[in-house]
Amino acid sequence: MSKIAILGLGTVGTGVAKVVAENARQIERKLGEPLSVKSVLVRHFKDGPYRQLMTDDFTTIERDDEIRVVVETIGGTEAAYEYTKRALAAGKHVVTANKQLVAEKGWELMELAQKNNVNYLFEASVGGGIPVLHPLTECLCANRVDEIFGILNGTTNYILTRMVRTGAFFSDALREAQAKGYAEADPTADVQGIDAGRKICILADLAFGAQVRPEDVPMEGITKLSLRDVKVAQRAGYRIKLLGRCLRMPGGGRTAYVAPHLVPEEHPMANVEDVYNAVAIRGSAVGEVMFYGRGAGELPTASACMSDVMESLRRSPRQEGLGWSGDADGFVDPAEVSTRFYFRIEGSLMDAAMAFGQVEVLSEDGETGFLTDSIPLREALEKSERLNVLARLRVLG
Amino acid sequence: MSKIAILGLGTVGTGVAKVVAENARQIERKLGEPLSVKSVLVRHFKDGPYRQLMTDDFTTIERDDEIRVVVETIGGTEAAYEYTKRALAAGKHVVTANKQLVAEKGWELMELAQKNNVNYLFEASVGGGIPVLHPLTECLCANRVDEIFGILNGTTNYILTRMVRTGAFFSDALREAQAKGYAEADPTADVQGIDAGRKICILADLAFGAQVRPEDVPMEGITKLSLRDVKVAQRAGYRIKLLGRCLRMPGGGRTAYVAPHLVPEEHPMANVEDVYNAVAIRGSAVGEVMFYGRGAGELPTASACMSDVMESLRRSPRQEGLGWSGDADGFVDPAEVSTRFYFRIEGSLMDAAMAFGQVEVLSEDGETGFLTDSIPLREALEKSERLNVLARLRVLG
Repeated sequence: MSKIAILGLGTVGTGVAKVVAENARQIERKLGEPLSVKSVLVRHFKDGPYRQLMTDDFTTIERDDEIRVVVETIGGTEAAYEYTKRALAAGKHVVTANKQLVAEKGWELMELAQKNNVNYLFEASVGGGIPVLHPLTECLCANRVDEIFGILNGTTNYILTRMVRTGAFFSDALREAQAKGYAEADPTADVQGIDAGRKICILADLAFGAQVRPEDVPMEGITKLSLRDVKVAQRAGYRIKLLGRCLRMPGGGRTAYVAPHLVPEEHPMANVEDVYNAVAIRGSAVGEVMFYGRGAGELPTASACMSDVMESLRRSPRQEGLGWSGDADGFVDPAEVSTRFYFRIEGSLMDAAMAFGQVEVLSEDGETGFLTDSIPLREALEKSERLNVLARLRVLG
Repeated sequence: MSKIAILGLGTVGTGVAKVVAENARQIERKLGEPLSVKSVLVRHFKDGPYRQLMTDDFTTIERDDEIRVVVETIGGTEAAYEYTKRALAAGKHVVTANKQLVAEKGWELMELAQKNNVNYLFEASVGGGIPVLHPLTECLCANRVDEIFGILNGTTNYILTRMVRTGAFFSDALREAQAKGYAEADPTADVQGIDAGRKICILADLAFGAQVRPEDVPMEGITKLSLRDVKVAQRAGYRIKLLGRCLRMPGGGRTAYVAPHLVPEEHPMANVEDVYNAVAIRGSAVGEVMFYGRGAGELPTASACMSDVMESLRRSPRQEGLGWSGDADGFVDPAEVSTRFYFRIEGSLMDAAMAFGQVEVLSEDGETGFLTDSIPLREALEKSERLNVLARLRVLG
């Protein structure tokens, strides 16, 4: 019998407890022995199915040698950070869905895990239940990874889907998402691109083997997105999606950013709708592969946590770690990344052509919507300096 | 220095040699030591970059204790089967892309591998470079897998894409695929669904932990598909895709089949085009996840082989195996699987309604195209017995 502890009993923690109970047979078949939850750390005791497992004292978990894996579902970087360090130091594997902690302290915690010959694993921190980090680090290990981009936040994708399908304004679509429980009362981290930003940092860390600090990564959300641009884009054969993107730059540097993009409707990512997420990885041998599924939710996220739990119990720790060094040098300003740009200006096609030379016109109705050639953001900003810019978005591909 | 041998130097074998050379740095970083190809088994010596590594005698590889992993890229079930058994018996890991051998003898070879404390791994046998089997068996290990379906053959998907986009007949689209090198001179295994059938057997074996024999699985290809149905489907908001599908049946049985399906255009699988593959897995916790990418080709397939090679070198063998028993009982005839059906009949809407009760009409122009309610194939066949059926296809979802 393998025993684990869960820290926190919110959505993810409850999901983990449920999956352990409901899929007991699959888990036992794979592990070769049953698995059970021995303790659940909570701040306040509550009645319910897990009442007898609850403790409000982390020390009892820390000192319990029977508990081999701790699933941290507290979130944030305070108690979660402290308990994670203590659990690793006590020789327990730690598994988490806490993208903020992984993005900010992941490298340090992985190093601590290696020192103690245990795992610190966080598949659920990116893409919810979709297997992404494991395929990236294990299945694509013979590739040089050159680029990753993805729809990393389900809340914003739901909002964008509503704007496209029903012509809803951002504010109305946000309220609808909140009513359905897809957006939190304070949606800042989602709609401003911070959540997607943490996830692209984690993906970049693992893809490039070096630290990408959240504070270096420009994160643009969808709060300023106009319904007008959604419609112009759609008529021209594009969908607007909030993408996190990281790239290996010529010369070996790396960069990352979060911004809304026009995605051509033929690209499979254009058809990822509602709360679904998708992550595309471009490898030197495999080409482009994409992973798709529910990026959040109680059971999908628990599914990913449990795969990390079971990997920790079934195998000796990865001796080689995940190849993530603490080196944060070599980060290049993503203003250097070239893409085509969509502009909507208060001005004429002539104004656009004066600034950019030849452009592709998408709309001319008082305002002018157009696409530039592929240029760095830096250049796009310089050339548009004298234009009255109403909207500027990158174009994928 | 880790050393491997490659059996066969066709597309996949050459790809593996190339990836070892071109991605040497990534591989060394992940393995902690360099990796090299020591021997290549060929039938006839040829000049080229691998001339010095070539041997035509398997015994030299079998007896070479330095060679820890053998990559079998011969194909078929004769020499490949014999050499695989001998390599495993000699205590070497074996990695392959040979779906025919895995589908027919996989269980026996895995058992032999376990006895000899080595791996028999075959990620590349399904979905080419796309990580699918590893995510299925490792990342979704806490799920009860209820269903898998996918576009498993790039050649037929290319042909179908051409039929939809350019209105080409099957025969013309096939010739185009052959001219582009996407279809072989003898395309039987592809267009008759046999290749997809082998792959769905492998997926079913791993998903359900029991043997699904290719000879039990009805495989219908696209050779009889009419351009007319492609057009009717498209106008009604569907794309026709050749799907392999396996399911857990109520009562615990399992089934599998290959057949063309009408896929609703909102489903992400409808937009998987050209030679791309996609595999959707429905798990009890994770819901539906999908994996997408190039399902064939030299480097993508080599990428998958190399991840298996590196897994074998980095870790002790999976003690638990993949949970695949040799038990072939419990296979249910897929005629029991219910879906909606598309029929095109030489007859009127009245004829359709007499046979099926209420139907959804898609086309009425001399012939009648319609969709039934969700019923088992068995029932669809019975009810359509007196109709003059020109086409019958399953509908996904």
